[in-house]
Amino acid sequence: MTTDPAAATITTPLTALAGIRHPILLAPMDGTACARLAAAVSDAGGLGLLGGGYADPAWMEQELAAAEGSRVGAGFITFVLAERPRALGLVLEAKVPAVQLSFGDPRPFAEEIKAAGALLICQVQTDVEIDRALEAGADVLVAQGRDAGGHGRPDRGTMGLVPSLVDRAGDIPVVAAGGISDGRGLAAALMLGATGVSMGTRFLASVEAQSSPAEAAGLVAAGAEDTRRTPVFDVVRGPAWPDGYDGRVVTNQLVQRWEDDPAGVRDQRTELKATYDASAPDDFTNRALWAGEGLDLVTSIDPAAAIVERMVASAAAQLTRAGDLLR
Amino acid sequence: MTTDPAAATITTPLTALAGIRHPILLAPMDGTACARLAAAVSDAGGLGLLGGGYADPAWMEQELAAAEGSRVGAGFITFVLAERPRALGLVLEAKVPAVQLSFGDPRPFAEEIKAAGALLICQVQTDVEIDRALEAGADVLVAQGRDAGGHGRPDRGTMGLVPSLVDRAGDIPVVAAGGISDGRGLAAALMLGATGVSMGTRFLASVEAQSSPAEAAGLVAAGAEDTRRTPVFDVVRGPAWPDGYDGRVVTNQLVQRWEDDPAGVRDQRTELKATYDASAPDDFTNRALWAGEGLDLVTSIDPAAAIVERMVASAAAQLTRAGDLLR
Repeated sequence: MTTDPAAATITTPLTALAGIRHPILLAPMDGTACARLAAAVSDAGGLGLLGGGYADPAWMEQELAAAEGSRVGAGFITFVLAERPRALGLVLEAKVPAVQLSFGDPRPFAEEIKAAGALLICQVQTDVEIDRALEAGADVLVAQGRDAGGHGRPDRGTMGLVPSLVDRAGDIPVVAAGGISDGRGLAAALMLGATGVSMGTRFLASVEAQSSPAEAAGLVAAGAEDTRRTPVFDVVRGPAWPDGYDGRVVTNQLVQRWEDDPAGVRDQRTELKATYDASAPDDFTNRALWAGEGLDLVTSIDPAAAIVERMVASAAAQLTRAGDLLR
Repeated sequence: MTTDPAAATITTPLTALAGIRHPILLAPMDGTACARLAAAVSDAGGLGLLGGGYADPAWMEQELAAAEGSRVGAGFITFVLAERPRALGLVLEAKVPAVQLSFGDPRPFAEEIKAAGALLICQVQTDVEIDRALEAGADVLVAQGRDAGGHGRPDRGTMGLVPSLVDRAGDIPVVAAGGISDGRGLAAALMLGATGVSMGTRFLASVEAQSSPAEAAGLVAAGAEDTRRTPVFDVVRGPAWPDGYDGRVVTNQLVQRWEDDPAGVRDQRTELKATYDASAPDDFTNRALWAGEGLDLVTSIDPAAAIVERMVASAAAQLTRAGDLLR
């Protein structure tokens, strides 16, 4: 039996549950996963999630309006929601199909999200977070390894975390995140028992991402080995993150100066913040260029639809060849 | 088409090149990958590699003799070979089918190994090591992510490193290492473009490994989240390792005390070494219990042959189902 990879779709419990054609989620990157990008991913058959991040209601209102006509969800940083509940209310009033909660305890918000008819997607990095997400009644679990770009935790790698979570999740679909940027990664995630992938870095390097030309050029130029996990940016620019979280960035002057001196950066926070705030938005010697370890595979800025289509075709080709390995 | 996973074998460029039935390599864990374990893995259809580690010729001579009749290779810590060449000479005289070099520059030893008719397997963790292994004319490249147990480097995760290395390796078979302990991991590695896997932790928890009951019990009891990368053991017990290398262990009292104080452990090395050396060999509050992030999947001590067979059957089942995902 031969399958034409270009025409193939990949069907998993996630595609059925989320009502999507391709098992690919846009990571709700704060600010960068704007309406234009989320809509492009959803229109291409994946699930675009608006990057609600720190839950600014004005941004969310504007992006929900801009995404009108496309089936997009939204994601939030969980630990800010208690103090800033309005943006969550907005997305639920807009009847989004899914809400992703990451970084913190999802239990206080689960009932409201599910009662509004949205799928509750919980991103988890550790055993404690897995327990809380299962208690919250998550409909989908995203296993985010430290390989991922942007915020997360340094504790677990994608390769070991995904099958471990699959074993604990029972019938709840697991999605793999961290270090995945092409169809090989999608096919591998499915073999680990995941039902799809969540991608940030690859979509950050898209035409539709709310990223500057300098950011896009930086992503294409850098490789996985240029990335580091660090809490430096959260300390310098704020807001403060709970203990244990950090973020993966392309290393720069600020990271190199402070990565071995966590006490020093806290001591000099005021001066460092002034310099940071005064720097140009695309001065990535100071500012954070968030990126994950799939970065070696990111070599061009492409339309999100092309990224989705190429990824599915390549994953389908790998999965088609899988049987040929068996003799 | 249905394939009986139990009867299936997985054929890759690695199995052809290395003359093995299953694309599974035993990581040459220093001392622990003894003749009994290496022979068991080879006899089960994988490739057992004696853990030559720090290149003690007496140990190697004894284990080569004990492995007589089984087709086993050997592995060494590269940076010790210049000062201790005898053990390498012994394995080449014994006409082993393969020699794995890890941690350091393989180029000075490549010609001797290849001239003796052994496959040169180079384990790599970074771009610099990839360049050196390619220059050395490696026959097989092992991409070791930081997810792995035992010695390695913290720089790169398995999920991103494997496809990146596959893209650079051309026709040279790539093997994935780090965080892989079951058939799902093997199937995932193949989808990433690898031609097989190298496993340490899973085989450390085998009947044949040269590990104590306390070590085996510790592996079964601990999970991935209990592991840490640390240079503490190399500093305390010696020999010194080059900058940038560390090792993943199940965390213990010694790690917890010193993980945030690398200068302190160097200052107090003499006292710490005395305590370490005086501790019982299976006192894992002091000693290193090496383990990788596939540890959540290790729940019993099994014969190596059962590990290999179960892994191939499970990977074959995953690969067989891969086609069903395509609609």
